[in-house]
Amino acid sequence: MWLIAATCFNALSLFLIGLSAAKLLSEAGVSVVVLEARDRVGGRTFTIRNDKVNYVDVGGSYVGPTQNRILRLAKELGVETYKVYVEGHMFHHKGGKSRNFTGICPSTWNPLIYLDYNNFWRTMDKMGKEIPVDAPWDAPHAEEWDKMSMKELINKICWTKAVRDFATVFVNVNVTSEPHEVSALWFLWYVRQCGGTSRIFSITNGGQERKFKGGSGQISEKIMERLKGRVKLERPVISIDQTGDNVLVETLNHEIYEGKYVISAIPPILTTKIHYKPELPPKRNQLIQRLPMGSVIKCMMYYREAFWRRKGYCGSFIIEDEESPIGITIDDTKPDGTFPVFLACFSPSSKEICSLFPVSLPPVHYEEKNWTMEQYSGGCYTAYFPPGIMHSYGRIIRQPVDRIYFAGTETATQWSGYMEGAVQAGERAAREILHSMGKISKSEIWMPEPESKDVPSRPFTTTFWERNLPSAPGLLCLLSCTLCVTSVAAAGLFACKKGLFARN
Amino acid sequence: MWLIAATCFNALSLFLIGLSAAKLLSEAGVSVVVLEARDRVGGRTFTIRNDKVNYVDVGGSYVGPTQNRILRLAKELGVETYKVYVEGHMFHHKGGKSRNFTGICPSTWNPLIYLDYNNFWRTMDKMGKEIPVDAPWDAPHAEEWDKMSMKELINKICWTKAVRDFATVFVNVNVTSEPHEVSALWFLWYVRQCGGTSRIFSITNGGQERKFKGGSGQISEKIMERLKGRVKLERPVISIDQTGDNVLVETLNHEIYEGKYVISAIPPILTTKIHYKPELPPKRNQLIQRLPMGSVIKCMMYYREAFWRRKGYCGSFIIEDEESPIGITIDDTKPDGTFPVFLACFSPSSKEICSLFPVSLPPVHYEEKNWTMEQYSGGCYTAYFPPGIMHSYGRIIRQPVDRIYFAGTETATQWSGYMEGAVQAGERAAREILHSMGKISKSEIWMPEPESKDVPSRPFTTTFWERNLPSAPGLLCLLSCTLCVTSVAAAGLFACKKGLFARN
Repeated sequence: MWLIAATCFNALSLFLIGLSAAKLLSEAGVSVVVLEARDRVGGRTFTIRNDKVNYVDVGGSYVGPTQNRILRLAKELGVETYKVYVEGHMFHHKGGKSRNFTGICPSTWNPLIYLDYNNFWRTMDKMGKEIPVDAPWDAPHAEEWDKMSMKELINKICWTKAVRDFATVFVNVNVTSEPHEVSALWFLWYVRQCGGTSRIFSITNGGQERKFKGGSGQISEKIMERLKGRVKLERPVISIDQTGDNVLVETLNHEIYEGKYVISAIPPILTTKIHYKPELPPKRNQLIQRLPMGSVIKCMMYYREAFWRRKGYCGSFIIEDEESPIGITIDDTKPDGTFPVFLACFSPSSKEICSLFPVSLPPVHYEEKNWTMEQYSGGCYTAYFPPGIMHSYGRIIRQPVDRIYFAGTETATQWSGYMEGAVQAGERAAREILHSMGKISKSEIWMPEPESKDVPSRPFTTTFWERNLPSAPGLLCLLSCTLCVTSVAAAGLFACKKGLFARN
Repeated sequence: MWLIAATCFNALSLFLIGLSAAKLLSEAGVSVVVLEARDRVGGRTFTIRNDKVNYVDVGGSYVGPTQNRILRLAKELGVETYKVYVEGHMFHHKGGKSRNFTGICPSTWNPLIYLDYNNFWRTMDKMGKEIPVDAPWDAPHAEEWDKMSMKELINKICWTKAVRDFATVFVNVNVTSEPHEVSALWFLWYVRQCGGTSRIFSITNGGQERKFKGGSGQISEKIMERLKGRVKLERPVISIDQTGDNVLVETLNHEIYEGKYVISAIPPILTTKIHYKPELPPKRNQLIQRLPMGSVIKCMMYYREAFWRRKGYCGSFIIEDEESPIGITIDDTKPDGTFPVFLACFSPSSKEICSLFPVSLPPVHYEEKNWTMEQYSGGCYTAYFPPGIMHSYGRIIRQPVDRIYFAGTETATQWSGYMEGAVQAGERAAREILHSMGKISKSEIWMPEPESKDVPSRPFTTTFWERNLPSAPGLLCLLSCTLCVTSVAAAGLFACKKGLFARN
């Protein structure tokens, strides 16, 4: 009998590695056991249900075009999607002032700032295209970019304070960490493997286009039902012993599970919680110490009515005030218009107090989920790579250690950090084991996914001007050159007219 | 009955927290148990003994002036020190060329490089003096310096490639990590709390002045003897439960220890190996993910004779070749001249193959200790702070979590990262508990240590020129100003002489 003990402490991974891997293996006739550290499945996805909210996702929640694996899995399990509300303006709050905007960055009357924004997105995407999604450590400038933090890169690319500040929010919002904490190589790769700056940051046609009716937590719950009793809750893994014929996995409550293979479906840093026999290889022992989780608290403010809709706003706010702990909000009202709510993400690292929305209409209910305190999540959304780690250690992230295989959204090559990445990673790890068992060929391990018919993607096109406009310093340089040439020409003309040149 | 379950997975900490704390508490009449994860005491200190080497320290080993606590402890236990061999030249190898030198940096014929070296040491020490050793997060520029990597700071301070390269070696050697990986604030603090650039880097009058006769491992072994059976080996802690009246500590072999207090004597990252009930506070849960251990392999090459001594070298090599995995060597021959040996430290992160010393005389014996593979050390010498962590999370590093107190050399405020820091931290944590038990007053927790009479320290003095010489760009600026003024003056004089000025 084959047994897979997937060491699933936490959620996204559990749901996608633990559960989606278990589902795939189980369908291939392999016997599996899923060990979950918490008292629930879902990991970094979690749907809370109560009278005040009906249901609400306080963890991973959004899906969109090109996330075809999670869309396929949800459809198979009968979980439908709906589109996030986008009617009306977005709202940009900075330095006490608020401005409407559309698109992925605030509008501006200042042409230099406009050019600087344009150049920032263009440069990020251009650099990203140099980076292989499955091997960022092999990018032509991997070493150079990895030794740089995103703060350094932002300071290099951006010329105006407005764009540097917005770029900081862009990092905060996408990877729940600070530009000075993360490697430029890693962040460029992260944006790239999500499909670029527009895909990762957009609602429509982007990563935040849709949510699941009834909540994303249903997906794990439904897989758990199908696995009928093979998912064991409250079983944190404390040790993995690979010294014998079978792998022995022990849990905190002293149970021992025996199997041929193990899939570790937890973020790298949480694999430090396990005692290994024999010890992990040196590079892996170093890698798993170096990938902390991002920090975020998700909170929801419920109102009697969606007053912002009435005023012509869609509910997406981007807030750049130093004092505000909130970076971004989004309308999370149910698709039928009930339970009007703002969803906000904030960083708990540097700001302690949250005055939230000083509107005349106070919220009628409040929910929050502080992911930073969770022992079996470590944080949310995903692990980040500090400077230098991707280039020195990154290439071993998916390398099996004897009979331990590594899944978890952190090991994905497309939408890593998202539910999609977790499904990709879980299914890939499951197929690595099927290959090792001789059930499939090596070429079947990495499977492309056909595009979802219900949620098709459209390409993001750039205009001629977006591609060819100069950067802000480029424009200034051009202007001064032009000015210089024009002055010389004018002076020449003037001199000529006045007969100041001697003629032969 | 009071019971202290010190969760000592690993060495330096064990030896200093586990054991030195246990010794102090035990002497105060408190009943203690020390739980050690390994099959030996000593942690990140480890003395190997065999016929080929007699004895050799493959972990923490050096002591010097101002390290008064470890010197006091060693003396009390009857362990003597001896001075490291320093007769003759040091040796600096770079770009295929070798040069002798004395002092803490290579000699140079180039005055710009000389000024640049001088300015680097001076600036590092000057910045360090702004940083409170017990609260680096409160330094006036804490946030700004913490958002910067040492690589960025080196690029700001150093003007010549020679000094930038040497500054990189200085970081590598002192904290077994790369300048782009570590926070500038943290590294400046680290050097400061060791007493400055000269104290940390020197042999004579510095951190590497002496070693222990018979090896540093003896200290832990002798404390273990005194604690008679209260040190339990091969007891990795898997969980700490603080929900009841007593703290319950469970080990991997299913033993449960009950006590009033716990001292965690392991590096922060290794505390992730423990399952906590209740969960750790959010900031601590984040902090312990963010402090990886440095990476180093220590190796020793034994020769038939100390041929370098015959040639007038002391055996200290600084090697700056990109290709060489070794950054520094030191003569580790026994004080009586037997067992001639080079000790070298190398970084395993980026370089795989080590051609070592291509001398005509091959080594007769080789020992190495790869600290990066040790599950219960994580790495060596100490934890490092990546950019941003000190300022956001540093202040909680010594904050107790209910009845868990934190020791480990990482929590020290003097010679943190060294054996001295481990003793300071262990004794401080023990006194925190004595205070909590009402046995001592709050003011007795942090105790100053009288200077060792056997190993007195001398101040490092700087000369007038070292303090006042310009930096390299400063000199160039001065030169061009001088040239400019001189030219104008000369032109003026010339014009005057030639009667070119109109006189009234």
